[in-house]
Amino acid sequence: MKASIITIGDEILIGQIVDTNSGFIAKSLDRIGVEIHEMISISDNKQHILSTFEKLQDEVDLVIITGGLGPTKDDITKKTFCDYFDDELIQNDQVLKHVTQIIEGFYKRKITQLNIDQALVPSKCTVLHNQVGTAPGMWMKKGNTVFISLPGVPFEMKYLVENEIIPKIVIEYQRPYIIHKTVLTYGIGESLLAETIENWENNLPDFIKLAYLPSPGRVRLRLSARGNDKEFLEKSISKNVTSLSKILGNSIVGFEDDETLEIVIGRLLTQQNKTIATAESCTGGKIAQILTSVSGASNYFKGSVVSYATEAKIAILGISEDSIKKHSVVSAEVVKEMAINVQKMMKTDYAIATTGNAGPSKGDSEAEVGTVFIALATPNEVIIEEFNFGQPRDKVIDRAAIKSLEMLRKEILKNV
Amino acid sequence: MKASIITIGDEILIGQIVDTNSGFIAKSLDRIGVEIHEMISISDNKQHILSTFEKLQDEVDLVIITGGLGPTKDDITKKTFCDYFDDELIQNDQVLKHVTQIIEGFYKRKITQLNIDQALVPSKCTVLHNQVGTAPGMWMKKGNTVFISLPGVPFEMKYLVENEIIPKIVIEYQRPYIIHKTVLTYGIGESLLAETIENWENNLPDFIKLAYLPSPGRVRLRLSARGNDKEFLEKSISKNVTSLSKILGNSIVGFEDDETLEIVIGRLLTQQNKTIATAESCTGGKIAQILTSVSGASNYFKGSVVSYATEAKIAILGISEDSIKKHSVVSAEVVKEMAINVQKMMKTDYAIATTGNAGPSKGDSEAEVGTVFIALATPNEVIIEEFNFGQPRDKVIDRAAIKSLEMLRKEILKNV
Repeated sequence: MKASIITIGDEILIGQIVDTNSGFIAKSLDRIGVEIHEMISISDNKQHILSTFEKLQDEVDLVIITGGLGPTKDDITKKTFCDYFDDELIQNDQVLKHVTQIIEGFYKRKITQLNIDQALVPSKCTVLHNQVGTAPGMWMKKGNTVFISLPGVPFEMKYLVENEIIPKIVIEYQRPYIIHKTVLTYGIGESLLAETIENWENNLPDFIKLAYLPSPGRVRLRLSARGNDKEFLEKSISKNVTSLSKILGNSIVGFEDDETLEIVIGRLLTQQNKTIATAESCTGGKIAQILTSVSGASNYFKGSVVSYATEAKIAILGISEDSIKKHSVVSAEVVKEMAINVQKMMKTDYAIATTGNAGPSKGDSEAEVGTVFIALATPNEVIIEEFNFGQPRDKVIDRAAIKSLEMLRKEILKNV
Repeated sequence: MKASIITIGDEILIGQIVDTNSGFIAKSLDRIGVEIHEMISISDNKQHILSTFEKLQDEVDLVIITGGLGPTKDDITKKTFCDYFDDELIQNDQVLKHVTQIIEGFYKRKITQLNIDQALVPSKCTVLHNQVGTAPGMWMKKGNTVFISLPGVPFEMKYLVENEIIPKIVIEYQRPYIIHKTVLTYGIGESLLAETIENWENNLPDFIKLAYLPSPGRVRLRLSARGNDKEFLEKSISKNVTSLSKILGNSIVGFEDDETLEIVIGRLLTQQNKTIATAESCTGGKIAQILTSVSGASNYFKGSVVSYATEAKIAILGISEDSIKKHSVVSAEVVKEMAINVQKMMKTDYAIATTGNAGPSKGDSEAEVGTVFIALATPNEVIIEEFNFGQPRDKVIDRAAIKSLEMLRKEILKNV
């Protein structure tokens, strides 16, 4: 089964917004074994839409269109559907009832003609119920090709894809099984990772594909198995993930799509009933911000002293002026004192401290731009590491924050 | 002049990565008056690429292709160029010299056959020099249509668009002038903003288009004037921006594309030689992180106390236990003490403090989820405001951080 995705809207064509709808739809279809042939973005011009429909009619089984609905778009998609399917718009009573409920019940205002017009749909279409908005989805068929129109608002589009379209395709069409498994790794760059697992990758069976999904500090590996025997696919994926785990050891942080280092750390600290604080200079509060982005962080995160200015390091963190004079603010000695002092002040089990120069120019010390010292105080010792995270500024801050959390996780794991 | 953009790559078609290259190219072309006809994403299949070329040959003057280069992609774009233009690959000595320099000079390793092959280009093509990478850009013409191939790596693609393609099009093709002006507003939601400027918007001349570009907490308004008389367009834009400024007053934060609230605040504080500190509870270091994301922040940002746990508020910030017992940690009284105390500790002119409940569940107080108190201590007074920022958690944190910076900017402006 092959599909194409059309996005209608000038705002995408002039680069004002990036089309993320197509990617979401593609991912949803790929998961149920539908192959994506093309993604196309075009302007809200009827002739252009019609000629695109005609071209795709011969090429694919399924065309999904987002956008081109609503008064500001002159409901161009609906009108084009009527032309293409030689149909006319009629009022759908169920849609009208739903629109009225939303406008009068939820927004507490009188329904207008524009609202009533949202209940107009081509007479031959199957309406896809949009529980979360006023524009319905529409499903129509010509020859062997199904054309589906969806609103362009992302959360309405997502609702319809997940609750109406995918279930309907799963029931009505035969497709191969696709089994996905994600492996989340931290601390190894993409090329080094590729070298490290080269043999393993070369030995993957043909029906399993591997994708590298890198983002700052981490790489997600995605295994996808495609075939007709679901149980066999699941066993093969599981076997290969096990052998991969042996190679990568604790560089693997998790196996869930939405897992992150900070979520895993939060779970570990909560399980062990341990607490953490940070003393941040060059990271400027970034580590605290990442840790507190997780719900339930108050169970283990006590607080942070962001001692950006040298005087704040002395006055609030109690770093000795002698140390700073002797070793400079960017030094192993100072970062060690920072970690120990914040651990004491906040009465925590662990503490992270950072000091460095994020650039672009040199600050209160002579340290090279990109230099960062990280200290991790544990219940037993203080571990200090020196890095150069290069440039630009925001990357230095991000890399230092992620690296410090990697160090933290590895230490916590030692005590499991 | 009309253009289409093709992206080649399976990773986009299965929704693994979102295509941001097309948006960047579209925006760059739109700025010089080139109209975008279509954006298309297809797999790295030669027949599919060829049929897409043939279709576009009749429709547009310019086709820009990204991706499909390099060994893992089997250099499919180059091979398809040879087929389509009835050409063959030859070694380009200048490209080879550049590749050798990068590999042997920068990466300090021996050049391999795969590297040498990057210097193979169709014999009839004009090479576009890729200063920042090893894959050259290629410019070829058939009939009246120019086809340009670019590497898919975003920063290499961007380098070639900005330094090679746009300058070449500007010289070789006549296009209308397009003048853009951005107006950055904070603190007014998109619909309220639209209502507020409705009359002004309705009175814009036909040749000026207005776009709303909302992101959390702010809306950028982009005016674009298109025509042949550059001076007239500039005057019209300037006149309309002046009248808009009268309506929106100091909700307008700046007029540059890359300006943000934190950059503007940094400039104001530096000019006035004033300093700032923060005491953060529910924002967890987010405000400090935003302020320190600006280079040169050490000129005005002294530090922050992230007092997430109640005990840290008492022990480090010196909040009185009585206040907390009497009013709870989420209260106007406590946030006021937080701001005053951190201002004293850090010896700053301004201080921001936050306390609240970001959710999803209730914490150390009975405050409703979403409740946030913000205090701003100035050299003369303490301003306290209470908000409910709703849900989810990350939005509460973002909204509180942005709102506190809006309050700060308005106070600083009073003293200009």
